[in-house]
Amino acid sequence: LAESKTKVIKGELVLLLGEESILTRADGKLHTRFGVLDLEKELEWGEEVKTHIGKSFRVAKPYLVDFLMKRGIKRKTQVLYPKDLSLILAYTTPPPDALIVDCGLGSGFSSMFLAHYCPQGKIVAYERDRENIKLALENIKKWGFENIEIKERDIFEGVDERDADLFILDMKGAEDAVKIAKESLKIGGWLAVCSPYVEQMMACVERMRELGFLEMKTVENLVREWDVRKFGHTLPQRWGNIHTVFITIGRRG
Amino acid sequence: LAESKTKVIKGELVLLLGEESILTRADGKLHTRFGVLDLEKELEWGEEVKTHIGKSFRVAKPYLVDFLMKRGIKRKTQVLYPKDLSLILAYTTPPPDALIVDCGLGSGFSSMFLAHYCPQGKIVAYERDRENIKLALENIKKWGFENIEIKERDIFEGVDERDADLFILDMKGAEDAVKIAKESLKIGGWLAVCSPYVEQMMACVERMRELGFLEMKTVENLVREWDVRKFGHTLPQRWGNIHTVFITIGRRG
Amino acid sequence: LAESKTKVIKGELVLLLGEESILTRADGKLHTRFGVLDLEKELEWGEEVKTHIGKSFRVAKPYLVDFLMKRGIKRKTQVLYPKDLSLILAYTTPPPDALIVDCGLGSGFSSMFLAHYCPQGKIVAYERDRENIKLALENIKKWGFENIEIKERDIFEGVDERDADLFILDMKGAEDAVKIAKESLKIGGWLAVCSPYVEQMMACVERMRELGFLEMKTVENLVREWDVRKFGHTLPQRWGNIHTVFITIGRRG
Amino acid sequence: LAESKTKVIKGELVLLLGEESILTRADGKLHTRFGVLDLEKELEWGEEVKTHIGKSFRVAKPYLVDFLMKRGIKRKTQVLYPKDLSLILAYTTPPPDALIVDCGLGSGFSSMFLAHYCPQGKIVAYERDRENIKLALENIKKWGFENIEIKERDIFEGVDERDADLFILDMKGAEDAVKIAKESLKIGGWLAVCSPYVEQMMACVERMRELGFLEMKTVENLVREWDVRKFGHTLPQRWGNIHTVFITIGRRG
Repeated sequence: LAESKTKVIKGELVLLLGEESILTRADGKLHTRFGVLDLEKELEWGEEVKTHIGKSFRVAKPYLVDFLMKRGIKRKTQVLYPKDLSLILAYTTPPPDALIVDCGLGSGFSSMFLAHYCPQGKIVAYERDRENIKLALENIKKWGFENIEIKERDIFEGVDERDADLFILDMKGAEDAVKIAKESLKIGGWLAVCSPYVEQMMACVERMRELGFLEMKTVENLVREWDVRKFGHTLPQRWGNIHTVFITIGRRG
Repeated sequence: LAESKTKVIKGELVLLLGEESILTRADGKLHTRFGVLDLEKELEWGEEVKTHIGKSFRVAKPYLVDFLMKRGIKRKTQVLYPKDLSLILAYTTPPPDALIVDCGLGSGFSSMFLAHYCPQGKIVAYERDRENIKLALENIKKWGFENIEIKERDIFEGVDERDADLFILDMKGAEDAVKIAKESLKIGGWLAVCSPYVEQMMACVERMRELGFLEMKTVENLVREWDVRKFGHTLPQRWGNIHTVFITIGRRG
Repeated sequence: LAESKTKVIKGELVLLLGEESILTRADGKLHTRFGVLDLEKELEWGEEVKTHIGKSFRVAKPYLVDFLMKRGIKRKTQVLYPKDLSLILAYTTPPPDALIVDCGLGSGFSSMFLAHYCPQGKIVAYERDRENIKLALENIKKWGFENIEIKERDIFEGVDERDADLFILDMKGAEDAVKIAKESLKIGGWLAVCSPYVEQMMACVERMRELGFLEMKTVENLVREWDVRKFGHTLPQRWGNIHTVFITIGRRG
Repeated sequence: LAESKTKVIKGELVLLLGEESILTRADGKLHTRFGVLDLEKELEWGEEVKTHIGKSFRVAKPYLVDFLMKRGIKRKTQVLYPKDLSLILAYTTPPPDALIVDCGLGSGFSSMFLAHYCPQGKIVAYERDRENIKLALENIKKWGFENIEIKERDIFEGVDERDADLFILDMKGAEDAVKIAKESLKIGGWLAVCSPYVEQMMACVERMRELGFLEMKTVENLVREWDVRKFGHTLPQRWGNIHTVFITIGRRG
C-alpha cells in the first residue's frame, strides 16, 4: 500500500520542482530550457530527476495553486484573483458540503477554487458561452474535479438550485441577478458580488438592500508584495496590481 | 429523513438572524436587548421566532464565520485575521486531506479555520501554554471539529509530523523554527510565516533562503472597507486597520 | 542688526521645543504639566528655558506646521489634510505670485497653507458663513498672513477673479461650481476638486470633461505611518486614516 | 504695460496646450505629430495657434510641473517623486525665505521643486558627480532659478550652512550623514530622509534618535490614480506605482 502511494501513475500531473518549477504530465520526453528530461520511466514522488545536461528537479505532487497558476489551465478572459476568491471564503466560510452557485463560469477558475475547499459539496456554474464551457470542462477534467456541474444557460432565465450556501456573481449585469440569487440562497446564506467598477458595486448594494440582505459589507483587497531578495535592500515592490474588484458580501435575511 | 434535517437539535448552535444577529444555543430563554426569546420549544431551521415584544428573528444554521466572529469563541490573545489565513489558503491550496502543522495554537482560531477547509485532513497544533490549550479545546469542542489534534509541547523540541503539506509559523522566534518546519514538510510542501514585524519577516526569509526554500514570496494584505450606506455619499471608510502581519510563503525544495 | 534678529519680540508666537513641544505667545507665566515657565522676561531664539521644577525647553521659531497642527488655529469643521493640500501643490505648482481662488474658506486652513507657499501671490477665499469668516480671520491674523482676502459671498453668485492659476473646490455642490471655476481660470490654469464621496468626484469629472478641461487626473492619497520606536519591532501602524478625499485635477483648455 | 505682459518673449518656454500638450521654446518651426507649427512669429499668451494641417493649440504659460514632467528637464537617475517632495513640504512647512540643504543634487529635480516654494530662500545642494552637476545646472538655467547654489563636494566632508530650516537626505549612506545634518540645522529645524529601503530607514531613525531629534515620524505615501474616463466603468487603475521611498522626518532638539 505504501508503495502504491509513492509511485507516480503514468500520465499523472507532476510538479518538477526546481529554481523554475514545471507542471507537466508524467509521460514522454520533456524539453526544458535546462535540457531534456525522461519522464517515460517509472517515477516516485519526491525523487530527484536530471536533464541530459545535469539540471536536477524533484518530482512533487502539484497543489491546486500549481495547476491554476503554472499554466495548468487555459484561460480566455480575466479571472478572479485567488486573493479575492479566498477573501470570499474568509467572510462566508461555506461548509465542506456547501452548495455553491457560481455565475459565471468563465474558464472555471473560481469554480475550481471553490470546489477544492468544499470537497463534499457541489459547485453549480452557469454559463452561456459554449467556448467557455468547453475550456472549463477541459480544465476541470485535467485536475479531476468531480463536484462541479456546468449548466449551459443564461442566468437571467433563473437557476434551479435552492438552499444554496453561497452565490457568486461575477458578471456584467450582476445588479439584475441579485433577486435570482436571493431566491436561490438559504436563509442566512451568502451572496458575494465581484465588481471591477464602482457604479456596478453601488447598484448591487442598492439592490441587495432593497431585497433585505443582511450583514452587508463591501471591501477592496490590496496585496502588496515585498522584495526581500537582497539584505540591506528590502522594500515593497515598486510597481504592482492595485485594483481587481470590489467585493460585496451580504446574506439572505 | 427530510424532517430530521429541518428540526433543530436541542442545545445545537443556532444563528438568530436579524438586524443584529445572535449566535446562541437552542435552549432555554434568551434575553436580548429586543426582548425575551423562547428557545425551549422545538425549532426548525429557517423558522421565524419572535421576542415577547414582537421583534422577529430567523433561525439559521450558523456558518463558521458566525462562530469565529460573533463571540462563539473565547480568545485571550490577538489572532490571525481571516483575511490573512485565507490568503495563505490562496497561495498554498492545501488539499482536502492535507496534513497541516500549526504553531502556535493560541485560542485555536487558525487551526479551526484551516480544519474547516481541509475536512478530510488533519491539523496538528503545538502549544506550551496550558491555559491556551484549555481555551482552544473548549472552542474546538463547541463547534465540533474532529480533525484538530493539540500537542502540549515546545515546538523547539521538534515536531513529530512528516510529509506535512503546510506548516504555519505564527509565533515569536519563528526564525529559529524554520529548520524544524522544513524537516516536517514534504517535498514541495509549504511554509507560511506570519510576522507582525519587519525584522522578524526578514530573519525568516533569510533562514528560508539558506535552507533552500523555493517560490518564496512575502506580502502584506490591506483590506479596505467601503461605506455604501447612503447613496450620493459612498466612500471608503475613513479609519481602519492598515497592518496585521507580513506573510511569507515558501516551499520545501 | 544681528541682535535684533535673535531677540524674541514680546507677544510673538514661540515654539517651546521639548519632548512635548508647546506653541504659545512670548508673554506672561505659562502653566504646563511640567511646571510653570516665565515668558515675561526677555527671550532669545534658541535659548534654553526651564520650568520652576527644572524641565527645560528650547525657544524655537515656530513653523507653519506648528501653528496648524499644534492648536495654533481654531477649527470648527473637518479641514483638508496637509497631505492632500500638498499633493495639489505637487500636481499644479502654482508660482510664487499665483492668484488662487479657494472655495470654501472654512477655518482658513487651506488658504493659509497655500498662502504660505505663494508668498508673493494672493489667495481669495469665498465663504458665506460669518462664523467661519470670523474664525478664519482670527487664525490668519494670529500668524500674520497678508496675502489672503476673504469675500463673504455665495460662490454660486460668481467670483470676481480672472486669470487665476489655481481654483480649489472643497465644498458641497462642487459639481455646480465647475463652470464658475473655469471662467475664473487662465488658459492652462488648474482646477483642483476635493471630494470625500465617489459620486461627487464622478459628477465633477463629468462636468469638467464637458467643459473641456485638459490633463485630468483623479487620485487618492494614502499616507501610512510606521512605528519605528523599538528595534526588532518595526511595523506599520496597525490602525490609521485610510480615506480623506478624492482629488481631481484638470486645467482649463 | 499690459501689452508687455501678454507678449511672449522670443525663446521663452511656452506650453502648447492641447489634447497632448507640448513644452517648447517660442522659436522656429516645431514639427509635431499633428503637423508643423510656426513659432517664429510674435505670439501672445492665451493665443490659439494652428499647425499646417489645422490642429490647434493654445499658447499657455508653463507651470513648473510642466517643466518637470513634460521633458523640460534632463534626468540621469531616478528622482524623488513630486508626491514625496510635497509631503515633506506638508510636514515641515519651510518658510518662503528658508535655508534648505539638499543632499544629493542628482539632476536638480528636488532642489528646483523646493526652490519654487521658497522663492525668497536659498537651496544649497551638495553633489560629487560632475556629470550630475552639469545636468542640473542646465536644468536650473533653463527654468531660470536664481536661488539654488550647487557645491561640488562630498557631503561627508561636512557642509558650510548653519541654521538651516530643512535638510534633505536622499542618498546612499544617509545614516552616516545624520550628524552633519543635525549640526547644520537650526534648533527646531527639520531633517527629512528619503529611503527606498527599510533597513536604511531604520538605521536613520536609530541615528536620529541617538542624536536627540524630536517629533520623529516615518511614513510611506501611496497615491492611487482612478480611471474615470467612461461612466459606469469607474475604477481605480489596475496597475501602478506602489512604493517609492520611506520618508522620515524629525527636528533638531
